[in-house]
Formats: sequence, structure tokens, C-alpha cells
Amino acid sequence: MRIVTLQTESGLRAGLEWNGRYLDIATNLSHLPSSVRELLRLGEVVHAQLQQLPERIEKPIYERGPIRLAAPIPDPPKVICVGLNYKDHAAESGAAIPAEPVLFSKFSSAVIGPEEPIRLPKVSKEVDYEAELVIVIGKRGRYIAEQEARQYIAGYTIGHDVSARDWQLRKPGGQWLAGKTFDTFAPIGPALVTRDEIPDPHQLHIELRLNGQVMQRSNTNQMIFSVDKLVSYISQVVTLEPGDLIFTGTPPGVGFARKPPVFLKPGDVVEIEIERIGILRNPVMAED
Amino acid sequence: MRIVTLQTESGLRAGLEWNGRYLDIATNLSHLPSSVRELLRLGEVVHAQLQQLPERIEKPIYERGPIRLAAPIPDPPKVICVGLNYKDHAAESGAAIPAEPVLFSKFSSAVIGPEEPIRLPKVSKEVDYEAELVIVIGKRGRYIAEQEARQYIAGYTIGHDVSARDWQLRKPGGQWLAGKTFDTFAPIGPALVTRDEIPDPHQLHIELRLNGQVMQRSNTNQMIFSVDKLVSYISQVVTLEPGDLIFTGTPPGVGFARKPPVFLKPGDVVEIEIERIGILRNPVMAED
Repeated sequence: MRIVTLQTESGLRAGLEWNGRYLDIATNLSHLPSSVRELLRLGEVVHAQLQQLPERIEKPIYERGPIRLAAPIPDPPKVICVGLNYKDHAAESGAAIPAEPVLFSKFSSAVIGPEEPIRLPKVSKEVDYEAELVIVIGKRGRYIAEQEARQYIAGYTIGHDVSARDWQLRKPGGQWLAGKTFDTFAPIGPALVTRDEIPDPHQLHIELRLNGQVMQRSNTNQMIFSVDKLVSYISQVVTLEPGDLIFTGTPPGVGFARKPPVFLKPGDVVEIEIERIGILRNPVMAED
Repeated sequence: MRIVTLQTESGLRAGLEWNGRYLDIATNLSHLPSSVRELLRLGEVVHAQLQQLPERIEKPIYERGPIRLAAPIPDPPKVICVGLNYKDHAAESGAAIPAEPVLFSKFSSAVIGPEEPIRLPKVSKEVDYEAELVIVIGKRGRYIAEQEARQYIAGYTIGHDVSARDWQLRKPGGQWLAGKTFDTFAPIGPALVTRDEIPDPHQLHIELRLNGQVMQRSNTNQMIFSVDKLVSYISQVVTLEPGDLIFTGTPPGVGFARKPPVFLKPGDVVEIEIERIGILRNPVMAED
């Protein structure tokens, strides 16, 4: 299944995508909540109901184009990010291959949806792109064993880990948070694709195009730490909750490691494509 | 005013403290919301109504003891933390005095209230204490000028920046997040004291006692970056929102810098006292 959040006249509403069209879940199944996060909290018992929905639909169907999507989870409790999780990217960043996952975070306030503009902050001159596979947590858990990690995963989406390198890498203290969490620096989407549709998350082509030109092209089989390892590792630190996001790191080809470096500028368009999930497209603009 | 969150039979409810007693705000003023965060969102227009409340109260009054407090803001949108903001603490940590504020974060899931136990995670052997003054944001803003910062501050509370030093300082990548955001690692309280009661937040005695013994004793006049500077600086990165918390850094005397080092153990009790705000007390226990 492909779960989305629709921007309707009555606000943000959990929706289902099929054949490029969308329906509003709670309008059709009125006992279900209207937010994806609340839907996830109900667990996989609702999957069967959702799967039958396109066959018995009575209520309005939205066509792509007139309807706009928001981030599939517009209000994640946590946005957990993993750094340096592709060997070649660690190398291009001049960093050692880490022995354990490197964790940092973005605030949920940075989350935006497909087609929403990434705003370049006035205070940075080095805003860079990073394509990432994102894990969406479906079940509350702590100390999750690696072998059981999959059942805590609701599914996957695409994430763009927008990064102001001047703020990430050249401020006192060496903390990445500020450079990673400017408003609009966490585009996600277009859909949350449920786990059953992606039996092997470590065999997905991942590609980032800047104005149509391929800048990152890799496969999730290049990850250092698997999605199972990441869920297990992170759950030692925090209780994972439905709707939590884990950005799993980016492959090589980022802008600051190029010679000469490439940074985002107003008018750019960034597309990230991951096999079986789709394309996350965001324009870039200057801040007002 | 002293605003608290009460743990009542009908859930968490915003309350007012006066003379060591508490009342439920929305029970008495039914047009007001029952969460402190929603109350903050209404702005300072509600202050006058709240101030008159103790005089015209009709509904149950809670006595300290029978009623338990939750964190004054149990659900902060962001928990922003500032590192190395006292000169002597930077020195004892072996760090340079930073030229700009060092920012890191905790997840909101780490927040607990007064008297709630700090749980020592099984995976850490070096859990340390840190007393901090916490700014509570009252008004949405971005690019806030230093001279105008005060009007974006609803008030102040006490924060305990519990820190697993082994996870903060000795993991690949040098990111502090993991060590700082274990569940229960952000006790705050007991009350949100509104700004009008603390005309000068840079003249407050701050003290931390471990099992009655003073471990940290300083004054907020030792801060490197003022509360106004911090609000202004952080608002360059993120839009600040009502209920956001800013932990302003800790004075010297932390456990890991002592010889021999001191770390928290089950059965310990930590009290942090800040002038005009009160005492935040939390017992320490082993994880289940």
C-alpha cells in the first residue's frame, strides 16, 4: 500500500494512493483517524480494511495534479538521522568508516512535503543535497532485537537530508544539528510505502538529480548498517514510536565533496528517486 | 505567575500554583485550554485572567503532596540545548570557550517531571548530571533581534541535562545527541515561572545537590551567551514556537570532570535549585 497525506479543503487528511489516484481514508472508513500517525498507532490490523478500500470506494476520488500532497507524516515525533552510512560517502567526506552508527537529528519543524520549496536561509552560503531512504516506525519499542526489527517498521519513504555545510561543519563544538535542521530542511515523501511492498530494503536503486543531472546514483546495498541494525541500535537509546522517522544516510556524490563544490541555488529543482517508492521532487528558492 | 501541569484523574491539566497550592486552570476558566502549550499559544492576553484566578476560585484546590506534578511542558515541540555556555565548565571539559553557541538537542520523549525517576540505561556506565536554566518560548518567531528577544520568552523553568558521557563523548562522529536523549534524560520543572517574575535571568543562583551534597554552585551571571543572544541566535536556524525549550548550559562541577569521576547510581537523589524558580528533584533508579 501507498499511504499519503492529502492537502484538502478540510485540512491534512490521510489518504491512499492507487493507480496514481488518491482517496481520503477516514471519509470512506469513518471509524479510522484522519492522520497517518494516528493510523500507524492502530497497527497492522487496519491493513486489510485499507487494502479493500479501492474496491468499495464511494467517496470523492482525487486526481493527481489538482490535489496536493503534504509530507506523508507531517508531524513525526522524532526525526532521527544516521550519518556516514555509505562507505564511499564516508570516504568523500574525509571521515573514517564508523564502527557504530553516527546519530544526529532534525526537528520535526523542518519537515515539508513533495513539491514544497526548500528555502535557502539567508545565513548560509553552502546548502547541499543528500538523498536518503527513510524508515517509518510503525510500532512502539525499546531494546528491539535485530532479528525482530522488521516488525517495528511500518514502511519506507524518501527523505532529503538538506544540509547547510557551513553551519554543520565549521561551527564550534562540531555538532551537526544546526546545519541540518533549518526550516524546510527535511522534505519527505511522496508516499509511505508499506513494508510488504519492499521485502528487501537493501536492494533499492537510489538516485538524486539536480536540474535533471544525476548527482548521486547508488543502491541501498551499499549501506554500512542495515535498516534492522539501525532500528535495533537506536532503540537502545530511545523508545521508538509510531511515526518516528529514521533517515538512513546518503550515498556518495554530495555537493560539498565535488571539485569545484556544488551548492543549491534559487530556481534549482531536486528530484530523489528510490526504486519501488517513487520520486520526491522539491524546488529550491531564496528565503523571503 | 507559576504555571504547572497537574497529574489529575482526568489526565494532564494546566494548573496555577500559589502559596504552595494548585488549581486547575480550565476547570475554573472553561474557555481556556487544558494544556500549558496551548495556553502559551494564546499569548499574554490570558495573563490578566490567570492572575485574578486565585481570588475568584470555586473549583477544587489541590494541596501539594496528594497531587503530583508532570513536566510543566510535557510535550515541547523542540528541546534545544546549548553546550559549554559557562566559562569554567568549558575549561573543566577541556573545551575552548566557543565563539558562537554550540547547539544540540534532546527528543521530547526524554522529558519527565519533578519527582519522576531518572532511569539509568543498561547500556551506559557513565550517566552524569547537569543543572540548567531553561527558557520557555511563548511566541512564534524567526530572525528575532537580540533587543526584542525577551518578548518571545514566556518564562523560565529548571532543567536537568542528564548525560551519558560514554555515549556522548566516545562514539564515532562526535555527535552528542545519543548521550543526551535517552528516555528520562530531560527532567524539567517544577513550574514555568513567567518572565515578569524574573526581570533579570542573568542574576540567579543555580545549585545542584547530589544526595544533599552540593556538586554545582554558580550564578547565571557566569553564562557566556545571554538568554537574549541565545534566542536570537537559534531563531536564525529554526522558527521558534510556543512551548519550545532552550536548555542554556551548565555551570562547572559535573561528575565526569571530577577526580575521581562521579556518576549517578540507583538510589541517588538529584536536586537542582534556581533562585526564584524553585527546586527540581528527581530520584535515580536502574532501568527495569
